[in-house]
Parts: sequence; structure tokens; C-alpha cells
Amino acid sequence: MKLCTYTANEQTRTGIVVGDAVIDTGVPGTMIDLIRDWDSLKPGLEAKATTEEGIPLASVKLEAPIQRPGKIFGATLNYHSHVEEGKKFGGGDAPSRPGFFTKAQTSINGPYDPIIITKGTKVPEEHVGHFPDKIKAIFAIAESSTDYEIELVAVIGKGGKHIARGDALGAVFGYCVGNEVTERTWQIASPQWSLGKSFDTHAPIGPWIVTADELGDPQALGLRCYVNGELRQDNNTSDMVFPVDTQIEHLSVGMTLEPGDLVFTGTPAGVGVANMPPKFLKPGDVVRCEIDGLGYIEGTMVAES
Amino acid sequence: MKLCTYTANEQTRTGIVVGDAVIDTGVPGTMIDLIRDWDSLKPGLEAKATTEEGIPLASVKLEAPIQRPGKIFGATLNYHSHVEEGKKFGGGDAPSRPGFFTKAQTSINGPYDPIIITKGTKVPEEHVGHFPDKIKAIFAIAESSTDYEIELVAVIGKGGKHIARGDALGAVFGYCVGNEVTERTWQIASPQWSLGKSFDTHAPIGPWIVTADELGDPQALGLRCYVNGELRQDNNTSDMVFPVDTQIEHLSVGMTLEPGDLVFTGTPAGVGVANMPPKFLKPGDVVRCEIDGLGYIEGTMVAES
Repeated sequence: MKLCTYTANEQTRTGIVVGDAVIDTGVPGTMIDLIRDWDSLKPGLEAKATTEEGIPLASVKLEAPIQRPGKIFGATLNYHSHVEEGKKFGGGDAPSRPGFFTKAQTSINGPYDPIIITKGTKVPEEHVGHFPDKIKAIFAIAESSTDYEIELVAVIGKGGKHIARGDALGAVFGYCVGNEVTERTWQIASPQWSLGKSFDTHAPIGPWIVTADELGDPQALGLRCYVNGELRQDNNTSDMVFPVDTQIEHLSVGMTLEPGDLVFTGTPAGVGVANMPPKFLKPGDVVRCEIDGLGYIEGTMVAES
Repeated sequence: MKLCTYTANEQTRTGIVVGDAVIDTGVPGTMIDLIRDWDSLKPGLEAKATTEEGIPLASVKLEAPIQRPGKIFGATLNYHSHVEEGKKFGGGDAPSRPGFFTKAQTSINGPYDPIIITKGTKVPEEHVGHFPDKIKAIFAIAESSTDYEIELVAVIGKGGKHIARGDALGAVFGYCVGNEVTERTWQIASPQWSLGKSFDTHAPIGPWIVTADELGDPQALGLRCYVNGELRQDNNTSDMVFPVDTQIEHLSVGMTLEPGDLVFTGTPAGVGVANMPPKFLKPGDVVRCEIDGLGYIEGTMVAES
């Protein structure tokens, strides 16, 4: 099943996407409430999907399917291709252990909404003294350093703590496309990455959630990112260093994962910062991220006024 | 005013603490709802505080004043005394720029609730190959590496984005005591710190929020942490590298701060890991954190079953 959050007639609700139509689930509350009660809701929603007509998808505004996730994690260096391109900047081999940063819940953005290039992000000279020369060069160039990263996003379902690897995919409700937008200078100068990963609008997700049972194997999906029609990232989730199940096992050792928590599962090679000079995003740029079986999201970059 | 979240007769609500009593605010919803509507609620609550009697504080259970913060930040290396002790482990001078990690909202814990030492946190040998010898020694010792950090916690009120330094303290609703509990091996091996800072129960806060107008200057408060009655941390918020206003200015450059977001503002010298050998917490240890004008929180360490 494909589940979305949409606005029509100034009301935001959850819907089932069937072909070119969206059917109101009729479930009160948000997508997180729906995920929490999924076992009891599923039979009724499946019936709706086959019997009701719905309204044209083109007549509604699709919102981020989860608008206020409790937690958002992002995997560090989790595609072999991205590890390789990191070596240009002195990066090492693939990590021996999964790594994660976080994104703020306020960074969530709709699948087709504008993405803000924030003003005032230039890092002062006196803050960058200890960085290697290649990194310093980026700081010197960049008035802003907003970058794209296509990622497969896992939406936690039942969740839990101490989830064994063999049970981990069963803890996932479904998947969607994410653009893990990053302000590079702030990522590096923070020095913890979370601030540079958490700017407002820097977590566009969608266009809907495809449930895990419908998607099938999450480790065999082509994923591509285009900027103004130019293919920048082109890889397959089979290239992940740590697959989704291992990531969930690792995240849940110390902490309880909950319905609607999001895991951005890493990005492949081709990010803007890996070019020399870096290809950062400019106002007017259109960024399209697509993943086999999940659809695409597309946002236009706008300068903050 | 002192505002708490408390449970009595199996109902959790917000209250005003006056001496040894707590008065039900009568405001529906959570502390975050109350903070959001503070301007309109304040006169009525001030009247309640002077006219109603309430019930004995000792008869209720105090909960974390904010139970589900939207965002939790923690300042890195933000006391000069803590920077000094970090040099034992090869740490450098005080940072030139504020730094922050995050804690998960699921790590929130009540002010007097047990704090869990999580099972299964031993970091495998093959994951620590690239760490310096002094850090490796900690990994080798530690079956678990749970540590305390007393911190002044700022609770965001109006919040906003691009908050100027001069307006930043006006964006704070109030303050409380926090124990920024950390699983050291996971903090270091993550390598982003967020996972090691986000274990369940590892953000005890309280015992209540003292509003900013009642507390006065947040940069002149003694703060102390005791383990089993032994004084481990003893400093003053005047020792901060970046004061609260600078932290909020920095955090709000790219991201909107919202009512009830929390900023753990850094910890002074004396943490367990800075001892040789490290003094990590054991089951049965009692950790008390107190700050002038804010009261204290106290939790007992328990092994996860």
C-alpha cells in the first residue's frame, strides 16, 4: 500500500494512493497515529483501496508523509561509492561500525516544496583555523554550501529496543525517498554534524510511504539524483556498507525506536562537495531524487529573504 | 514562577510549585502547550499561585517537566574547566565556535527516576582499531561506560530563527537542572556523538522549570554533582566558554527553535571518564545534580534486566 499525507480544502489528512487517485483513510490524527494502530487498521484500509474511488492526486497538495518524526537519524558514509569519493578529502576506508548523525524534526519538508538556502551561514575565518587545506578552500569559496544527498528513508513501524538483526526489517513500516540536504560548512565546523544537517526545510521526504510488504527487498533499489536535469548520483542500495537491518539493530541497542521515527540510510557518490570546485546548490536549482518503486521528490532551491 | 509536570491519582498534568505545595494549573495539555500560550496564561497562573493552596508536593510524583521535547541539544566542551581536563586525553584549547550534539527525545527521564545502565554496549575490538591508546584503554576496561554530567538546561519559550544575541535570553522560557548522562564508548565510537548521548533514561531533567524572570542571571549559578554523596563536579555557570545567549544565537541561524526545545548548556570538570582509571557509574550508584536557584534531581543507577 502507498500512504500519503495530503492537504485538500485546507485540511491535512492521511490518504491511500491508488494509481492517480488519493483515498481519504478516514483515520483521525497523523500518519504516526496510523502507523501505531496499523495492525488493526490495515484490513479496513485494504478494503477501502479496492472499493473507493478517491479524488485526483493532482488536485491535492502532497505533504511530508511524516510531519513531526520523534527522531531522525542519518547514516554516515554508508555507500562504498561515497566512501571512495571521500578519499579525495583524506577520508579513510569504509567504517567497521555503523555511524549516525541526527536531523532536527523541524527540518522536515514536503516532497515538492521549496528548499531554503539559509542566509548568514558563512563560517568566520577565525573558526576554521585548524581544518585541512582542502576543507579550508571550501570554506573560503562558500557564501553558502547547501548540498543534496539522495537517500532511501526507512520509516519505523513497531520499533522497540534491542532489535535483533533478523527482526529488524519487521520493525520497519515502510520506505520513502529523502533528500538529506546538508549545509556543508556547518556540518564540518560544528564539529558534530547535527547542526549542518538540521536547517529548516533540509529534510524533504515523500512523495508517500510504500509499505515494506509492497516494496520487497530494500537492498536492491536503483536511486538517482538530478540537479536541473543533470544526473549527479546514480547507484543502487545494494552498495550500502551496512544494510537497513544492521542499521536498525545498531540504533536500537541503547534507545527505543518508535512509530514514525526515520532513518536516512546513507547517500551514494556524486554529492556536490565531492567535485572540485564543489557544485553547491544555487537559488533556482531544481533537485529531483528518485528511487525505484518509491517515486520521486523534487524541490526548487530558494534564497532565504 | 516554578512550573512542574506531576502525576497524582494516575493523571499527569502541569502544576505551579509554591513552597512545599503544588497547585494544578488547570491548563489542558502538556508543558509545551502551556509555554506556547504563556503570555495569555501568565496573569491567571500568577493569581492562582497567591490564592490557591494546592496539595503537598510530597504526595505527587514529579515527572520530567517537558516529557517530549521537539529537539534536545547539548553543548560540546563548554566549560573552561572541562576543556582543561580534556587535555589529559589529547584535547585542545577552548573551541572558537559553539559546538552541539543532540539527544533523542526518548532519552528524557523524570527527576528522581532510575537511570538505566544498558546491556550489550561493549564495543567490539575490531571497531576500535583507529582510536588513540588512551581511548582504547577505556574501551578495554569498560563493560559499560555510563557517565554523569551536570548541566544547566535552558527551556526555549518563544524561540524563532536568526535570533540576535541581544534577544536570545528573551527567547528562553526558563531553566532546570539536567543530568546529561552519556555512554562514553558509544559517544566516541559512533563517531558522531548523538547515539552515545541518546540512550533511554539518559536525560533526567527537573525537578521543575524556574521561569527566566524568577531565576535572574543564568551565568552566575553554582552547580554541583555528587555520586553517592561524593562531590565530583563543583563549578559555576560563569565558567562557560559560550554563554547561553551565544548558544541560542548560534543554534537559531539555520533552524527554528520552538517552545519546549531544550539546550543542555555544557558540563564542567569532574566527569567520570576524566579520571584514571575512569569512574563510570555502577548499579546502585546515586547521582545527585543541583544548581543554585533550581533545586536538585537525583537518580539511582540500575542495570538493564
